[in-house]
Amino acid sequence: MFENNLNSEALFDLYETGYDPEQAVTTGSNYMFGNGYMGYRGTHPDATKEHFAACIVSDTYDTADGKWNELCNVPNGLFISLSINNNQLSGFSEDLNHYKRQIKLDTATLCNEFENDQVKVQVERFASLDQLHLLAMKYVITPKNQGDANLVSGIDGDVWSINGEHFQEFRVSKEADALLMHTVTKELGTDIYVAECTLIDGVPGTADSLESNEKQAFRKLSIKLSEGEPLIIEKFVAIYSGNDTEDPKSAALQDLHEAIQQGYQSAHDRHSLKWSELWNSYDIQIQGNDRDQTLTRFNLYHNIIHTPTHALLPVGARGLSCQAYQGAAFWDQEIFNLPMYLYTNPAIAKNILMYRYQTLEGARGKARKLGYRGAFYAWISGKTGAELCPDFFFKDVISGRKIRNHFNCWQIHVSPDIAYTIWRYYEVTGDKQFLQQYGAEMMLDISLFLMSRSFYNVDKQRYEFIRLLGPDEYHENVDNNVFTNYQARYVIEKTLDVVGQLKAERPDHLQQVLEKLDVSEEVLSTFEDMVRKIYVKVPNNDGVIEQFDGYFDLEDVRPEILKGRLIDKSEYWGWPNGVAVHTQVLKQADLIQLFVLHDDFDQELLKTNFDYYEPRTEHGSSLSPAMYSIIASKIGYRDMAYKYFVKSCTVDLYNTNKAVSGGTFIGGIHTASCGAVWQMLVFGFAGFSEHHDTLYFKPSLPKDWHQIRFKLHHRLNFVHVTIDREQIVLESAPENKDALSIDIAGNTRTLEPGQRLTTVNH
Amino acid sequence: MFENNLNSEALFDLYETGYDPEQAVTTGSNYMFGNGYMGYRGTHPDATKEHFAACIVSDTYDTADGKWNELCNVPNGLFISLSINNNQLSGFSEDLNHYKRQIKLDTATLCNEFENDQVKVQVERFASLDQLHLLAMKYVITPKNQGDANLVSGIDGDVWSINGEHFQEFRVSKEADALLMHTVTKELGTDIYVAECTLIDGVPGTADSLESNEKQAFRKLSIKLSEGEPLIIEKFVAIYSGNDTEDPKSAALQDLHEAIQQGYQSAHDRHSLKWSELWNSYDIQIQGNDRDQTLTRFNLYHNIIHTPTHALLPVGARGLSCQAYQGAAFWDQEIFNLPMYLYTNPAIAKNILMYRYQTLEGARGKARKLGYRGAFYAWISGKTGAELCPDFFFKDVISGRKIRNHFNCWQIHVSPDIAYTIWRYYEVTGDKQFLQQYGAEMMLDISLFLMSRSFYNVDKQRYEFIRLLGPDEYHENVDNNVFTNYQARYVIEKTLDVVGQLKAERPDHLQQVLEKLDVSEEVLSTFEDMVRKIYVKVPNNDGVIEQFDGYFDLEDVRPEILKGRLIDKSEYWGWPNGVAVHTQVLKQADLIQLFVLHDDFDQELLKTNFDYYEPRTEHGSSLSPAMYSIIASKIGYRDMAYKYFVKSCTVDLYNTNKAVSGGTFIGGIHTASCGAVWQMLVFGFAGFSEHHDTLYFKPSLPKDWHQIRFKLHHRLNFVHVTIDREQIVLESAPENKDALSIDIAGNTRTLEPGQRLTTVNH
Repeated sequence: MFENNLNSEALFDLYETGYDPEQAVTTGSNYMFGNGYMGYRGTHPDATKEHFAACIVSDTYDTADGKWNELCNVPNGLFISLSINNNQLSGFSEDLNHYKRQIKLDTATLCNEFENDQVKVQVERFASLDQLHLLAMKYVITPKNQGDANLVSGIDGDVWSINGEHFQEFRVSKEADALLMHTVTKELGTDIYVAECTLIDGVPGTADSLESNEKQAFRKLSIKLSEGEPLIIEKFVAIYSGNDTEDPKSAALQDLHEAIQQGYQSAHDRHSLKWSELWNSYDIQIQGNDRDQTLTRFNLYHNIIHTPTHALLPVGARGLSCQAYQGAAFWDQEIFNLPMYLYTNPAIAKNILMYRYQTLEGARGKARKLGYRGAFYAWISGKTGAELCPDFFFKDVISGRKIRNHFNCWQIHVSPDIAYTIWRYYEVTGDKQFLQQYGAEMMLDISLFLMSRSFYNVDKQRYEFIRLLGPDEYHENVDNNVFTNYQARYVIEKTLDVVGQLKAERPDHLQQVLEKLDVSEEVLSTFEDMVRKIYVKVPNNDGVIEQFDGYFDLEDVRPEILKGRLIDKSEYWGWPNGVAVHTQVLKQADLIQLFVLHDDFDQELLKTNFDYYEPRTEHGSSLSPAMYSIIASKIGYRDMAYKYFVKSCTVDLYNTNKAVSGGTFIGGIHTASCGAVWQMLVFGFAGFSEHHDTLYFKPSLPKDWHQIRFKLHHRLNFVHVTIDREQIVLESAPENKDALSIDIAGNTRTLEPGQRLTTVNH
Repeated sequence: MFENNLNSEALFDLYETGYDPEQAVTTGSNYMFGNGYMGYRGTHPDATKEHFAACIVSDTYDTADGKWNELCNVPNGLFISLSINNNQLSGFSEDLNHYKRQIKLDTATLCNEFENDQVKVQVERFASLDQLHLLAMKYVITPKNQGDANLVSGIDGDVWSINGEHFQEFRVSKEADALLMHTVTKELGTDIYVAECTLIDGVPGTADSLESNEKQAFRKLSIKLSEGEPLIIEKFVAIYSGNDTEDPKSAALQDLHEAIQQGYQSAHDRHSLKWSELWNSYDIQIQGNDRDQTLTRFNLYHNIIHTPTHALLPVGARGLSCQAYQGAAFWDQEIFNLPMYLYTNPAIAKNILMYRYQTLEGARGKARKLGYRGAFYAWISGKTGAELCPDFFFKDVISGRKIRNHFNCWQIHVSPDIAYTIWRYYEVTGDKQFLQQYGAEMMLDISLFLMSRSFYNVDKQRYEFIRLLGPDEYHENVDNNVFTNYQARYVIEKTLDVVGQLKAERPDHLQQVLEKLDVSEEVLSTFEDMVRKIYVKVPNNDGVIEQFDGYFDLEDVRPEILKGRLIDKSEYWGWPNGVAVHTQVLKQADLIQLFVLHDDFDQELLKTNFDYYEPRTEHGSSLSPAMYSIIASKIGYRDMAYKYFVKSCTVDLYNTNKAVSGGTFIGGIHTASCGAVWQMLVFGFAGFSEHHDTLYFKPSLPKDWHQIRFKLHHRLNFVHVTIDREQIVLESAPENKDALSIDIAGNTRTLEPGQRLTTVNH
């Protein structure tokens, strides 16, 4: 047992043996399963909206209240409830002899068990990775005596929603053995079909009665139980929206039909096989600390299930775990979720970047609206890339007055962060086709935006970025934030590299893109001038880089002191008049974040700046601790690195916060933090980095860890990395095409395909 | 009687016949007298600190509480109190038969009368305009029966102070017939001497006893009264500080001695003569509305008495009426107080500008500290010109948390406003010597500051000013505020004109100044580029000029609506989260202010913009209404112009506000508003403007006014202007040197010295 009633049997699972209704939001997220198309919250089979049961389906964006665009929570086709001799029995029941809820991470299968004196019930559910529209359930009742079982099984359309009822009508029909619920979203009129079938001992169940009210379609089934004779109920659910296909109704019925033909076991086998392939790419094996192994897998698992791979859709800040944060992407997507894919399964990284290509028009529209050129990506980016972040986001809890925060207009680093990632993708994969066809246009348009957003200081002869919000969101309205300026300069420089490459290799295409974006020779000259003259602050005499102009003049206090100044515990610490605004206290890593993205800062500088900024950081964002862990590893602060590793790994797992704050639902999985766990292990503990086609390793394992093992690719050459206390072992896959350049402790070696390289770990 | 117990006998006075202790702060200011060296609050002769008695002396800046720099309220040498048969009698007494407090504006003489069944007391006090360090009093007791009068007369050092006790010790001595109090200021150790003498029927009074405690030195005098025989008591007080002279003690005793020699009547005669000379310059005579005549003179009077002319010192925002606003100058000084002097008595205007020259180092220091070049004048400028405006000025009354307002760093227009005034001074006076010797350096340094504060927008190919606070202080953090950008462009253009003039006439001096300020040829080229490319917004399709970038996107409501949104009546409407911030509601004239300063906007544009901005203005500043009056006159909105005239004239006179707001004392005379009254009459109702050596008149008198008459100069040629319903009469003084070019209704005439020009008033 770790903490908070969490256990693991196989280092690939988590389970609890008692249910806490107070934690329904959090545990429903933690135990959820999903497949990137949909996320199904891991609560009990008879859970309803009051228990935060939900099946969130990708690409069902809709605005029910005229204001907030969010994904739909579709009718729940896996609903089933059981009575034995007219007594309701489920995981919610009190006085159970046995209770267990378990998420099997290796196969993304949720298992529920509950048992009283009369029966034992075992439930398995999963969202197929083989057939993304399919949900399946096996529900086994093992009677201890004979008795009467009454089952209600069907589709519960009376679902939970944060911002208004999304469905304007429900139509239920019976199609052969299936129940079919059709509904239509309120704003866009998107059709949603949920087809369901319940099988009893392999035979479609004949309902005693079909109860259908406005939003619900339930079969009532009465079954005689015989002592010791298990009753096996299977359910299949197929879900399609009008955005998935032209004929979602037929598609749902067809998928359901195929699932019935196939049977539960076969469906689960095919699903599991796909999952084993995924884990083959993503798994990181840890020896020496079982808890850390499980924590790690829990986070990798969640990064996987919340990432849509079937279409060009954003990775939501809360993924598919609920509707919070509008099912939309932030900079988190490229900087936190994507690196795991980039180094293990680059097709997914490309898919994420192609989503950004697809939403270029949204970014252009935002730039235009604010008086800029080029592409200013949305701070909160849904399907189209239009800005979803409202002008007024938080409330001043003291006055009750709304606050004009400026995430949507001053936090410009999202655009260069995307361009940075495009370039990183190219460097790691060598995917010229993507770079030239799509990346070039995005990078040029982002550089164009940066140019139009910058100002030239004639007196100081430098380009400045004025009125920013860096990653540290407690300080709005700052100038020359180092993170932003550095990213901007890097991106414009790389854009010019891409232009050079295209000029040499595809001059006609270059011409087309330049014309399309209206980038003149003069603009390209300005880019060159900017690379030379963008103002990036340098270390002061103490070696500390000032986060932004004037930061050092702010009151130098610590987060603990600021807590004492709060008038209301729930008040926002930042703009315009929160306790941190006029102090040096940071919400989250800012320079430290920059150090994670770029390797060109020396150890001494990392250390000096870590020592300065770390005690001033409040970690008001879940994105923060992982970045401190990585830099702590790099500078040899092993205990500090581990402390932040645990903090970051358990953001969701040990979460006991209320899911609703100031009237806003903020529950769900912190997907960026999940993605960051991979980075802490690989960039931090394994000390991996990649530069000009060389792979560097400088490990620093936590004290009680014996070994970590994971897989990396470079330009589709796969390498198994095994690091233990004594040695670093690199195994190049025999099918690799290229020799790889490896640097360990300053020694560069070449690793041929199929070769194994063992080095002493200093 | 006008309102609020205010009356006038001679159109050159104000009096009340009842005392309201609730209004002690306001009436003490309104009835005060002064001479630019000191201001003596117009309360009763026996008033003490609890009645807000005060004698504020210029150039006694000191910081008692380590935070707020302010003028000293020096020991009160005019203190006198009276008992008749052991009953205290004064203006504060209840059950008086007669009470009158009157300020005679023509001679700046305060008269008090009070009477009961036993005696009548008549008091006259003034601060000599002939001898600036001298206060004098005549106190006449006329007994109705015989009786015993007991007088306490001396120096009361137990004075009132806003921010701490300024005096660290008091020493009292008797020097011949004089009492001498010496004290020393807390921060700077400035010596202050107050010498006092009391004469009874012309003979220095022999005290029965001298009572001297720590802060007070009082003579007790017992006198037998005889029925019908007036007793005449005279007091003289001389005040010097160590900043006035090297030997302030001797100077005080010397002045006192001379005053005694001279006698009260002679002193008052010489004082009155000086005042008649002043009124000869400044008076504006109105026929048709006695109230407006008196209101006007009241305001001109206060502009005069609060303006130091004896030294290079700021015109305080509350003048010498109290310590509020640190006895310091704002932009008000040049834009509100100065124009009256510029057109009537230009030596005073020059004196004000020389104060700015003297404080250039303070402005340079401020610029340097904020990372700019050149001269960034203080928002609140005391003796040295160092910035006195603190970072945290207001409090958020809802949370109790201090607010970081940005008057001291974003309200940059003060610098170009000063340069604008230098140029206007030159245009009106032709004073090349001042322009070349002092103005050039200030203008160059201000332009240098503007250059370093501006940014070049490479994309839009224009210079922008980012993060401003315009005159409309409800909107901080705005870009390209039209007022600021226009002023900046104007000033840089005129700076280049001055450079051109110096190049032709005094090339060596130019070289010296350029070298001193480190202004290179390249900088001068940048100035030229800026004149062409500073972004000044143009009217939109409806003819309205947007006050700043994005103003039109703000919520379009009216001030009345915002009042309903206040949580606390006393809350600040502006930054960061006040009710006006996200709306189009203005604190005060911003574009309208610009129109007052520059004549190059056509009638149609003035009208369209007046119509747009006027209903959106809250007039949260006393500077605002006068500007609307002037523009209303220019566009023929006669009633509106008059409404704003009355509002502006009565800011102090009809003031019934509490003097203390949120713990801060804000009482005292609004000197800028007083200066603006002259502008409303001359620029507004008389429609006067000056352009390229031509004087324009386009009058628009209020309905019931028959005539206004005032004096103007142009290049020291004086003209009497008389405007009535039928005609405009201009009389050039015979001693004038130049013919003047006059434009009335588009017809240009020449007015020779001594000539009288009569024109029909259309």
